[in-house]
Amino acid sequence: MRTNYKDDFPLLKNSTAGGKPLVYLDNAATTQKPAQVIEAVKEYYEQYNANPHRGAYPLSEKATEVYEAAREKAAEFIGADSPEEIVFTKGTTESLNLVASSYGLDNIREGDEILISIEEHHSNLIPWQAVAKTRNARLRYLYTDENGKLPLEEISAKINARTKIVAVTQVSNVLGIVNPLGEIVRRAREVGAVVVLDAAQSIPHMPVDVRALDVDFLAFSGHKLYAPTGIGVLYGKKEHLRKMQPLLFGGGMVDDVSEQDATFAEGPSKFEGGTQNVEGAVGLHAAIDYLEGIGYERIGQIESELTQYALTRFHSIPHVTVYGKESGNNRAGIISFNIDGAHPHDVSTILSADNVAIRSGHHCAHPLMRHMGVNATCRVSLCFYNTRDDIDILIESICKVREVLGLELK
Amino acid sequence: MRTNYKDDFPLLKNSTAGGKPLVYLDNAATTQKPAQVIEAVKEYYEQYNANPHRGAYPLSEKATEVYEAAREKAAEFIGADSPEEIVFTKGTTESLNLVASSYGLDNIREGDEILISIEEHHSNLIPWQAVAKTRNARLRYLYTDENGKLPLEEISAKINARTKIVAVTQVSNVLGIVNPLGEIVRRAREVGAVVVLDAAQSIPHMPVDVRALDVDFLAFSGHKLYAPTGIGVLYGKKEHLRKMQPLLFGGGMVDDVSEQDATFAEGPSKFEGGTQNVEGAVGLHAAIDYLEGIGYERIGQIESELTQYALTRFHSIPHVTVYGKESGNNRAGIISFNIDGAHPHDVSTILSADNVAIRSGHHCAHPLMRHMGVNATCRVSLCFYNTRDDIDILIESICKVREVLGLELK
Repeated sequence: MRTNYKDDFPLLKNSTAGGKPLVYLDNAATTQKPAQVIEAVKEYYEQYNANPHRGAYPLSEKATEVYEAAREKAAEFIGADSPEEIVFTKGTTESLNLVASSYGLDNIREGDEILISIEEHHSNLIPWQAVAKTRNARLRYLYTDENGKLPLEEISAKINARTKIVAVTQVSNVLGIVNPLGEIVRRAREVGAVVVLDAAQSIPHMPVDVRALDVDFLAFSGHKLYAPTGIGVLYGKKEHLRKMQPLLFGGGMVDDVSEQDATFAEGPSKFEGGTQNVEGAVGLHAAIDYLEGIGYERIGQIESELTQYALTRFHSIPHVTVYGKESGNNRAGIISFNIDGAHPHDVSTILSADNVAIRSGHHCAHPLMRHMGVNATCRVSLCFYNTRDDIDILIESICKVREVLGLELK
Repeated sequence: MRTNYKDDFPLLKNSTAGGKPLVYLDNAATTQKPAQVIEAVKEYYEQYNANPHRGAYPLSEKATEVYEAAREKAAEFIGADSPEEIVFTKGTTESLNLVASSYGLDNIREGDEILISIEEHHSNLIPWQAVAKTRNARLRYLYTDENGKLPLEEISAKINARTKIVAVTQVSNVLGIVNPLGEIVRRAREVGAVVVLDAAQSIPHMPVDVRALDVDFLAFSGHKLYAPTGIGVLYGKKEHLRKMQPLLFGGGMVDDVSEQDATFAEGPSKFEGGTQNVEGAVGLHAAIDYLEGIGYERIGQIESELTQYALTRFHSIPHVTVYGKESGNNRAGIISFNIDGAHPHDVSTILSADNVAIRSGHHCAHPLMRHMGVNATCRVSLCFYNTRDDIDILIESICKVREVLGLELK
């Protein structure tokens, strides 16, 4: 069985620094791209580039074909009923804003409640603040416990008859912990609330099936899934998309336009005004093909084992706090930590001298940081192309931090 | 002096069909990409890919550097005072919607007038319909005369003390005719109206300088400018951008976020929530470099000469109507026409048998079509990589249309 996937990723081979190979552990921020994806984009521009849905010549028909094939692939990938339920956006942020602006503003009334979790990334938080303010509704939070988990009592207590929308992340981008989505959806269904799922951090690591999960909306980004930047997906149940207003008005999304009025197209094109990111869609298609070639089973196996290995090594280092109590197989490859006396920013800078790339900061999750009582954390986020060697180099580098900062070692 | 640029564009060499070379004349829909742009994107993914503005390691710093260098390039390219005036979007459509939603909704009051032209592409039309309806304001139109031009009297008559926004295209995507922007801006300044310029069709063909034009906002797309899809620019004067609200809320655009509130960053990042299309920005940078290497003077010379040649050939064919009365040097390479008795869609299909790619339809400009009294047109849109041979093949193919359709030839 194949154990090393780095060879598929040109950047991982190219980015040595001072003779040190790149240890890329910021995959929750963005992933590297396999040669298959890079080549698919190149091939698109060298062979098929045209404006889809607009020309009656073969090149434009081909561009339409590859663009719509990407939509079909994405639909199949997440188990949607039909490609009509897939809207291409520029990323998770646009996807979630579209749901909030369009579905949210149209369906939230004064006194209603929108429920999110304290773990939300700003992109699944600020749009709901805006809806709540505009509609005079209440934005409520599910709070994690001291282990970084959402307690089931919290879910049953916070979802009630006034709850109209529950918008949660499947995996916290800070803690990596997988949320109890089954329980959230079950409870939301009882009160007739709509469920919006931020799958940006989950879908690179585990199969996501919208029918099995029974969510109303789901958002993810291409660039965190080995695809190019500038492409994302919004899945929406047909019955919702049908009633929603577009966020952007432009070409290709109308039925008819008079001087003072416009009627809109049916289907996903209603939300895709203007020329779309065709190369992004093509790259996403190639990335999904690549992922499926490896398979989520194998990906999960590698990542769980590696995360568990990293956790064990982390727990052996003095002066290090790992956030969230969860084993390696329920963490989506994410470990947030701090080193006593060391600012996270300094930690990542010190690690970068060993060509180890991790993220430090608030991870676009200010409210969670406050809830955890920290200003910032360091975050390691690994994926299937990482190796035990990467973890060993990481741990070795972390062990130097307090020495470099002149702090005592024991 | 170099006369043939096709060799720079891999697709133009690759797309022969039945032994016939591709004659690509749909450049107003989207342009082909030079090898330099394709390579720049590939190089980005093979060497610099990371999430910009988020990591404290060299790869992320490099990604930040190339992303911000693209912003500086774009600023310099259109003569902006500072890169802070450049917002990256996914294209002209998002740029114009951002101005309408954010500046428009905040500054238009009941009874105010928004003035656009009847030539507007839907992307500079439907967003203003939405603003006018929401604010109970009046959306007025500048109408073209029988030659497809905006008469100066129309401009002076329609811009008045109630006019708060004038949003116009610099070049009609149907007629190709360059609008008298100097006069529009002069008159708008007199009444204190803000000018929004859609430069999507002009900037590929002529230098666009925001200071010389003195516009408040300007929008264009990368993909019509030899750059990738999924990247566009909104230029806005600093004093306007400073006061505007973001359209999308997410990561990287905030100052601070509490559970119920958020404050936003200064500068263009306020409008760039979420991970941006970095490869698109890198590709746009490479495209601008490529264009500047040729120079607008040379581009204008080639395109004017070629358009004039095409017009002369068009005027020699019976049963053909060319729309708009303007010479080759004021048409941005665009010629819209119809053939008596032939549906535009059939024309482009017949031409595609000769591997000639033109566009037919309403060109996302329904109101203009109605004003012109046609349902649709055929549109040839050429650029500097086209040649006299392309035009000869086009004309030869057009001459067959009536024969193929069984219509009389004289």
